[in-house]
Amino acid sequence: MPERERRWNGWGVAGERLSVPDAARAFLTERLGSGDPLPAVPEAEVKLPAPRPLPPLPLPAATDDASRLRHACGSSLPDLIALRTGTVAAYPDAVCAPDTPEQVVELLCAAAAGGVTVIPRGGGTSVTGGVTVSAVDRPVVVLSLERLRGIVALDRGSQLARVRAGTLGPELEAALAPHGLRLGHEPQSFEFSSVGGWVATRSAGQRSTGVGKVDDLVAGLEVATETGLWRLAAQPASAAGPELRRLLIGSEGRLGVITEATLRLRPLPECEDGLAVLLPGWAAGVDVCRALLQNGVPVETMRLADPEETRFGMTLVALSPLAARASRMLFSRRRYRSGCLLLLGWAGTTQGMTLAEQTAARHWRAAGGFAVGRAGWRRWRADRFRHPYLRDELLTAGWGVDTLETAAPWSGLEAVYGGVREALQRAAASLGTRVVVGCHLSHAYRDGASLYFTFLWPLARGREVAQWGALKGAANDALLAAGGTLSHHHGVGTIHAPYLEREVGRTGVAALAALAHALDPAGVLNPGVLLLRTTDHGPRTTGGGEG
Amino acid sequence: MPERERRWNGWGVAGERLSVPDAARAFLTERLGSGDPLPAVPEAEVKLPAPRPLPPLPLPAATDDASRLRHACGSSLPDLIALRTGTVAAYPDAVCAPDTPEQVVELLCAAAAGGVTVIPRGGGTSVTGGVTVSAVDRPVVVLSLERLRGIVALDRGSQLARVRAGTLGPELEAALAPHGLRLGHEPQSFEFSSVGGWVATRSAGQRSTGVGKVDDLVAGLEVATETGLWRLAAQPASAAGPELRRLLIGSEGRLGVITEATLRLRPLPECEDGLAVLLPGWAAGVDVCRALLQNGVPVETMRLADPEETRFGMTLVALSPLAARASRMLFSRRRYRSGCLLLLGWAGTTQGMTLAEQTAARHWRAAGGFAVGRAGWRRWRADRFRHPYLRDELLTAGWGVDTLETAAPWSGLEAVYGGVREALQRAAASLGTRVVVGCHLSHAYRDGASLYFTFLWPLARGREVAQWGALKGAANDALLAAGGTLSHHHGVGTIHAPYLEREVGRTGVAALAALAHALDPAGVLNPGVLLLRTTDHGPRTTGGGEG
Repeated sequence: MPERERRWNGWGVAGERLSVPDAARAFLTERLGSGDPLPAVPEAEVKLPAPRPLPPLPLPAATDDASRLRHACGSSLPDLIALRTGTVAAYPDAVCAPDTPEQVVELLCAAAAGGVTVIPRGGGTSVTGGVTVSAVDRPVVVLSLERLRGIVALDRGSQLARVRAGTLGPELEAALAPHGLRLGHEPQSFEFSSVGGWVATRSAGQRSTGVGKVDDLVAGLEVATETGLWRLAAQPASAAGPELRRLLIGSEGRLGVITEATLRLRPLPECEDGLAVLLPGWAAGVDVCRALLQNGVPVETMRLADPEETRFGMTLVALSPLAARASRMLFSRRRYRSGCLLLLGWAGTTQGMTLAEQTAARHWRAAGGFAVGRAGWRRWRADRFRHPYLRDELLTAGWGVDTLETAAPWSGLEAVYGGVREALQRAAASLGTRVVVGCHLSHAYRDGASLYFTFLWPLARGREVAQWGALKGAANDALLAAGGTLSHHHGVGTIHAPYLEREVGRTGVAALAALAHALDPAGVLNPGVLLLRTTDHGPRTTGGGEG
Repeated sequence: MPERERRWNGWGVAGERLSVPDAARAFLTERLGSGDPLPAVPEAEVKLPAPRPLPPLPLPAATDDASRLRHACGSSLPDLIALRTGTVAAYPDAVCAPDTPEQVVELLCAAAAGGVTVIPRGGGTSVTGGVTVSAVDRPVVVLSLERLRGIVALDRGSQLARVRAGTLGPELEAALAPHGLRLGHEPQSFEFSSVGGWVATRSAGQRSTGVGKVDDLVAGLEVATETGLWRLAAQPASAAGPELRRLLIGSEGRLGVITEATLRLRPLPECEDGLAVLLPGWAAGVDVCRALLQNGVPVETMRLADPEETRFGMTLVALSPLAARASRMLFSRRRYRSGCLLLLGWAGTTQGMTLAEQTAARHWRAAGGFAVGRAGWRRWRADRFRHPYLRDELLTAGWGVDTLETAAPWSGLEAVYGGVREALQRAAASLGTRVVVGCHLSHAYRDGASLYFTFLWPLARGREVAQWGALKGAANDALLAAGGTLSHHHGVGTIHAPYLEREVGRTGVAALAALAHALDPAGVLNPGVLLLRTTDHGPRTTGGGEG
């Protein structure tokens, strides 16, 4: 598959974009006013410091400016702002791309011996600072896994594939499809993110309600550490001590470099479809989602937008004049004034899908909902990987946008929903500005669900990162206070690291630190990611998880 | 629920037994010859050493002989032999039963300060030496969780229950049923094992194909360590770093004492039933099981016996003369000479069950199988918790019996099946004796399944443990060599600890040791369980998981 050139200072590939429709501009202008457009400096204007000298490395190391610039940041909003404004805080001194897992071990050994910091990098789509180079007083090498690609072995009988960590989503599914198999893990970053990145950050795909999170899809792992390749062979289940695979899933490059994962596959579905359902409100929609899960109705994709996101979402799709009129009429009816769109997708046999849809219909009808057809579903499905392009265009238009996600038991979901929205509104008021907060529920379980918030505000030139920090911090505090988890599928990175102790307690952080020390005694890997650097620890209030 | 007195030197409760039918005696005599009956010494003849002096403890400590004897062993075969022959190697010096999680912390602190070893104990049904007191040069206190019982809180909307660790199976389900809920976790030890024990050992119940292993049922945990109570609140899913709950699941009392688990429940099924299917052979049966899983046919219980276990199983049920004659005729037909019985159980709605059974029938018919009715299923279900009583009677009759279990991907299952059977036969020949090996597949996944072996041999007086050790060791070596996991649901304990490194590698053992040191720096908890004691490490060949 020919690779298209990634954009160095924005989402995705060069040439691809998603412009902001007039209706969306009007909506945002009405709700937020206009902000200061964020210009993007041309690459030629970005001045990099000279790379620091490196000890001997066992691999070729790229030290040219273009490579260093393209491996300095991930895809968080602060990353994007830094890239667009030419204010990147730190660059790697070199980029290495091993061809084999053994070379990864060699690089780690050389780094340990030579006092080098190593930042493992898959697709570079982290939105939590997981691959962002930070200023450290040692040389920094980015270890790109881009050459560790492809399927190592396919076990069709067990529906398992050993896949190299650098393999990207489309490449993997394309290699599996001729065998009648699929993984079905489709995060929004699917086109650009890698198997290793998914595993390292505990990602979830849009089909997670059907196929599970990546946590559930990993049967075996190979991880490079300074002492060699550590292989945990594929097992369907085990009681041979604590599940060490689960310890490496979500380890974010702190405990080793994931070089290969054995993934659980499933047959390609006979057919696949979905529909959109309109529900009279958020609470009714959440209840339908819960009922579907707790009654075991087999849904593959489930996505419930709250009233705000439903409205904003409508401004993003180009409706025919007729459809636009029908939609205006519908939402003007008292019953659907706070209407919420629920997208439901199925994959499987025709018979199974029909049955599941019929069962689901009983639940949405009981909640006052009705199906509004398959077109909305199909459009969402066609565009679902393109939405991140909008962020770049919104910045250009003067509006900041970021997302955050959490999860909680069903009984706590309303408190998290209300708490985060209120905290964002309050934080915006403190900043003397306004914010639009949309939310969707997009990964559901028998015992709870994930909430995914999108917030937008008018940018103030020079204060973009401060605005973002105040909003993001307020939301994090609120979701933790309401019992939500720090992240459902974006990971911890550097951005969430200061909050981790509030969720897992002092003991949890101490356990992780002990593991990091045991597996990376030289402290080579990803400083500040997942766990704060020792120097980052201040006299913060602690004790979250402890009694 | 009134508690019935547990037998001090055998399975279950006093007064309950399951005698060996004449047909089974005849089968074993023909296949194994007769062995030396293992007598059981009366309790009055067991002489305990005086308890060692203890430092001050924050709780009452029972030091009477009866308590110490009843808390010295688990339920492994060596445990049972030691109890019956009055040759228990070590006794605890005291037994403490805290009333609160806080008291567990206090006890651990006092133990750390006073140089005491603590062995946490739930129902005491470990078959891997997980609760067996071993000879150490420090005083030993068994920490019984029997008083930490009951449901702390029920969240009906999220179908979650916070349950104290000492709660036993029947007690839990009885408390949930009035709310229309169930856990559905039913290991063979269900009546006597505890929630904390299930979590600590990664147990699996007979409904695991439908409800999952206990690993999947834990949403939150509370664990006592020397630094306090560590609480990981219930979450449906998370990406807040590696899943620390999974680190504690399977920690076998080495990383802390599990005091509470938040468990994922499901609604009580409308109805429940199953049937027995006869398949022409083992390979055909395995293929049917695999097809059911990989095609998503919703089975709750699945249990395929191999030809040997099918035959031996028939000798254990009292068939009517007519049924016995029909069964003899059936198995004498060439096609079913190596016939295998498959039990399939469903729970849910009548409609769902009917559909699932029809779908399953297509698979078993395609493999040459046919349904032999519901009676066999119902009988198995009625008796399913009683089978362990047979072990005591077999020992009395002169035959040793033990079980071991593993799991592997479907593609590796045949190698494990053949390897373990062959190793046991070879080991028996080396001992100059014979062995009967039965096997069933009873926990299945999309990517693989568990195999559960039962082996019987004629006992030689005074050499019972040596015979067992030779057979068990050969089987362990064989299953690891063939790519099976050391245990699918019995855990590691002391019996499997020497093999763990072959599965998880030096790095895996080092990671666990670092964790144990971080969470239990005084080394109070369960020495020799999960991880070998430092003094146990010899110059063994290593490197299993490492490359």
